[in-house]
Amino acid sequence: MAIRYPNGKKYQPNELAPAKPPQKTVSYGNRGMSLEQDLNDTNTYYLTHERAIIHKKPTPVQIVGVDYPKRSSAKIKEAYFKTPSTTDYNGVYQGKYIDFEAKETKNTSSFPLSNFHQHQMTHMEGVLKQGGIVFVIISFNTLGEVYFISYEHFKPFWQRMLDGGRKSVTLQELRQVADLIPYGLNPRLDYLNIVHKHYF
Amino acid sequence: MAIRYPNGKKYQPNELAPAKPPQKTVSYGNRGMSLEQDLNDTNTYYLTHERAIIHKKPTPVQIVGVDYPKRSSAKIKEAYFKTPSTTDYNGVYQGKYIDFEAKETKNTSSFPLSNFHQHQMTHMEGVLKQGGIVFVIISFNTLGEVYFISYEHFKPFWQRMLDGGRKSVTLQELRQVADLIPYGLNPRLDYLNIVHKHYF
Repeated sequence: MAIRYPNGKKYQPNELAPAKPPQKTVSYGNRGMSLEQDLNDTNTYYLTHERAIIHKKPTPVQIVGVDYPKRSSAKIKEAYFKTPSTTDYNGVYQGKYIDFEAKETKNTSSFPLSNFHQHQMTHMEGVLKQGGIVFVIISFNTLGEVYFISYEHFKPFWQRMLDGGRKSVTLQELRQVADLIPYGLNPRLDYLNIVHKHYF
Repeated sequence: MAIRYPNGKKYQPNELAPAKPPQKTVSYGNRGMSLEQDLNDTNTYYLTHERAIIHKKPTPVQIVGVDYPKRSSAKIKEAYFKTPSTTDYNGVYQGKYIDFEAKETKNTSSFPLSNFHQHQMTHMEGVLKQGGIVFVIISFNTLGEVYFISYEHFKPFWQRMLDGGRKSVTLQELRQVADLIPYGLNPRLDYLNIVHKHYF
């Protein structure tokens, strides 16, 4: 749990280290700023409309050093990113446990499975066994297309890679088992609509 | 969300800032190191025995500055504690969403409600409305007693305070609506046993 590594995660501007140049923002049609922002906005919509309570988990960090310059503020002066042991999003919808991971790619024809880690797959497998609703959201940023794939449908692609097969999922393969999440005004990405259709 | 404050949270030794002297550890009977450690151990037991998947959420921090000295490690050099907008623990048990907050006190006769924030109460109210299972675990460290109180039973004490009444819950009041979670060897604090009894 003490592995120190750059987790490759995209930060929102206010969380971004100034050391790293900001990524170029590409805008296609009504696509949002980033998948994370769109999902956060969507989850806020769900929260305020009492449709569901789903939050992104904080980025796990190992805190090593803290300064207490004043009584009212503590400054963390040394910390490291930890490997997340779960997926990023979870919460509750109509009493049921909801759990998902969201990833984006600039690729236009396939999704590289290197975006996932084995421990995340293990976590999702466990959630499935516990009767939770677990899925993956994949955004093809360049195409402006966001897909919903149940873990049950995503798992065989991972297994194929473990068995020595291809290390990615082609867009064509994905489309056969995934639902396109249409961009909307509010909520931005109404993935619960798809959850409801499939599981309720 | 950018409030910078020391959140008063007890860190495990490996997360503790050397600047702060370690708290004196008091050992009574078979009490554990700390409530957080006991709950983490319990959750690990549940995970490995496939009884439930429940995790403590990472402490939310606002990352301001990061150094990238090597390709393989990123060092956070400036960050601040953020106010958590939810409870600390959540997960899934038999398909149902589980959500709880855990607090400890050194008091021996009452639990100060200042341990909770309004936003946590709001979150728990929302979870209840969504049909989730939501509760509070309170440890009286000096007594070595840990209690399970459903949010439904905890809420009236909070409301009483909002209405101008006392700012704490007496141990006697608590015992009338709470279940004692007995300390065990493994799992340390089998709170799911109580969840199962009340909700399944």
